[in-house]
Amino acid sequence: MKDKNFLMIPGPTPVPESVLLAMAKHPIGHRSSEFSKILEEVYANLKYVFQTENDVFMFASSGTGAMDAAISNLVNEGDDVLSLVLGNFGNRWAKIAAGYGANVDKITVNAGEVINPEDVKNKLAEKKYKIVTLTHSETSTGAKNDVKTICQIIRDAGSISVVDGVTSVSAMDVKPDEWGIDVLVSGSQKGFMIPPGLAFLTANERAWKVHEECKHPSFYFSWDAHRKSVRENSTPYTAAVNLIFALQEALRRIKEEGLENIFARHERLALGLRHSLRAMGLELLVKDDKNASYSITSVLPPEGISVPDIRSHMTKDFDIVVANGQNELKDKIFRMGTLGFVSDRDLLTAVSSLETVLARLGYKFDVGIGTKTAIEWLNK
Amino acid sequence: MKDKNFLMIPGPTPVPESVLLAMAKHPIGHRSSEFSKILEEVYANLKYVFQTENDVFMFASSGTGAMDAAISNLVNEGDDVLSLVLGNFGNRWAKIAAGYGANVDKITVNAGEVINPEDVKNKLAEKKYKIVTLTHSETSTGAKNDVKTICQIIRDAGSISVVDGVTSVSAMDVKPDEWGIDVLVSGSQKGFMIPPGLAFLTANERAWKVHEECKHPSFYFSWDAHRKSVRENSTPYTAAVNLIFALQEALRRIKEEGLENIFARHERLALGLRHSLRAMGLELLVKDDKNASYSITSVLPPEGISVPDIRSHMTKDFDIVVANGQNELKDKIFRMGTLGFVSDRDLLTAVSSLETVLARLGYKFDVGIGTKTAIEWLNK
Repeated sequence: MKDKNFLMIPGPTPVPESVLLAMAKHPIGHRSSEFSKILEEVYANLKYVFQTENDVFMFASSGTGAMDAAISNLVNEGDDVLSLVLGNFGNRWAKIAAGYGANVDKITVNAGEVINPEDVKNKLAEKKYKIVTLTHSETSTGAKNDVKTICQIIRDAGSISVVDGVTSVSAMDVKPDEWGIDVLVSGSQKGFMIPPGLAFLTANERAWKVHEECKHPSFYFSWDAHRKSVRENSTPYTAAVNLIFALQEALRRIKEEGLENIFARHERLALGLRHSLRAMGLELLVKDDKNASYSITSVLPPEGISVPDIRSHMTKDFDIVVANGQNELKDKIFRMGTLGFVSDRDLLTAVSSLETVLARLGYKFDVGIGTKTAIEWLNK
Repeated sequence: MKDKNFLMIPGPTPVPESVLLAMAKHPIGHRSSEFSKILEEVYANLKYVFQTENDVFMFASSGTGAMDAAISNLVNEGDDVLSLVLGNFGNRWAKIAAGYGANVDKITVNAGEVINPEDVKNKLAEKKYKIVTLTHSETSTGAKNDVKTICQIIRDAGSISVVDGVTSVSAMDVKPDEWGIDVLVSGSQKGFMIPPGLAFLTANERAWKVHEECKHPSFYFSWDAHRKSVRENSTPYTAAVNLIFALQEALRRIKEEGLENIFARHERLALGLRHSLRAMGLELLVKDDKNASYSITSVLPPEGISVPDIRSHMTKDFDIVVANGQNELKDKIFRMGTLGFVSDRDLLTAVSSLETVLARLGYKFDVGIGTKTAIEWLNK
């Protein structure tokens, strides 16, 4: 049904009406005092969401832009970088660093698994790395690293930790200052509940020291230019004014709901979804709930039923968009987002729709058991 | 009056209601076939607006991002770059190139003046440069370079021309293929009539050859990744979906009006404004109309009247935003945009409002002469 689209992908995520309407206002001058006041509020609220006392920079870019902003402000040709790879996005860190001339080693795990902190400790004992990159919530698999433990190991080894929080910040607890994350990035079309086009980065003093040795940092993503601007409630280059109108409204909503409540909501929905899917006899890519992201759940199709069939029925019959797997996981899994502007009602909607589709496609199971499990989960 | 804002700055520019409403739609998946169809249309229409047969890349970034995308895909440490500098934005090219380790020489002219093509010819005869950067319409002064002549000289010398068309493309005639511009960039919040957050770049085969020698090109602004994606009606990283909804609508409007008519409209409004301002006894920073941009007009305040007073009265009394000068031109000039979604009516509004403000501030002149001149200009 036209305009009845419900996004259950890991981004873009659904956007609240008040955010869409804020975005639809006529732009104002990005150098006006009116806009400066908006930036003041936005920058303060970004620090709240990022749970940091350090500046949070905002770029007009996708989340990959913020990843580039991290590496291109830290790496010189010939630097040693270790990338901890859970999937596609963990691998993107390695590609970016290699592109700027770093020598990149990797610890790679199978899809759905997470990094064993002991392996990191051993690797860092063998060789000194300037930078270690990792992913909090791996969007391509739905696995979640133990960032707190790993970043402590990285710090103890004297390296800088660079963390992709694109699908975790504002959805799952991540405390850069407390956990010792040196650089943390995120993007707008995820837990922030606004359309794509803004990305964020925060760096601590340890990272700044490494940055100071960077010979040719990115111009557009310049940390120095952004720090100067943030402190003047400005932006170094033209701000994406209307996306920032949207962000202002979304951050107000986030503050009103409260981070703790938001984290609990994501946990409740993701775990409720996982229980319901398992009750339907489906296999999940991430086996252990303690390694599961609360933003995205990867599901294997039942034997004899194809991922494209499931996805196309979900879209055609119910206007629900779920994501395919990426690269070698294409058509092997489908991915269901519970990220951002997603409610208890959406859990019921998603599970009952998927049950209907699977029954329609001939999957033999106890039809209704998924929804029953979700209902019991919400009522427990 | 609240919500009565009229932007007469060189960006952001006014946005048509149909574009704002297109942008306010719920986002859709950026990897969906529905979005791919939108990209197919957008990429084709961008080629129309850029008057090129080459691919036009689209970045989620400000215009400065596209400038960075040009230099960071061409320059290696130690390369020789010549920057032709009319003002702030001409100088930005030099800063970007120097940041990436290039040896940058400059030809700099006084504010309001333009580059003499003979000076470029002589400079290029003295020394071989890999890249020459220049600005079509210099946003900080309102001066316009003779890009066609200069780019021919650059080509004859065997260098690559890199042109800032941020406030010219889709407002003033610029023909990269015909004029031999090797790299041309622009931004969305200008003639494109959409809010800031998208930027564009097109490069020809000569530029691609130089790119192939670039050792560490930008990851986020990668030409290779963007070329591959454009040809698949996709984007390499998450697209700024809602800004692209806006762009789709704006490009349809541009095609409907027709580039020739749009160029004529910008010329009519800019020259009408210049005649009217002169009739009021005001001095313009760009003396000669043939060197004047049709996007932006820089005006010196009458003696004894300050730029801040003019700007604040324009805003407070009439909700019209005009820009201050930048850097050393701050408070020395004010800048009036006639860029994008601007009509004949707006010329009358701007001139009559400015006349009222100047009279209110005690400037002695033939009150009404500016508007009379504008009326006669439109009726001639």
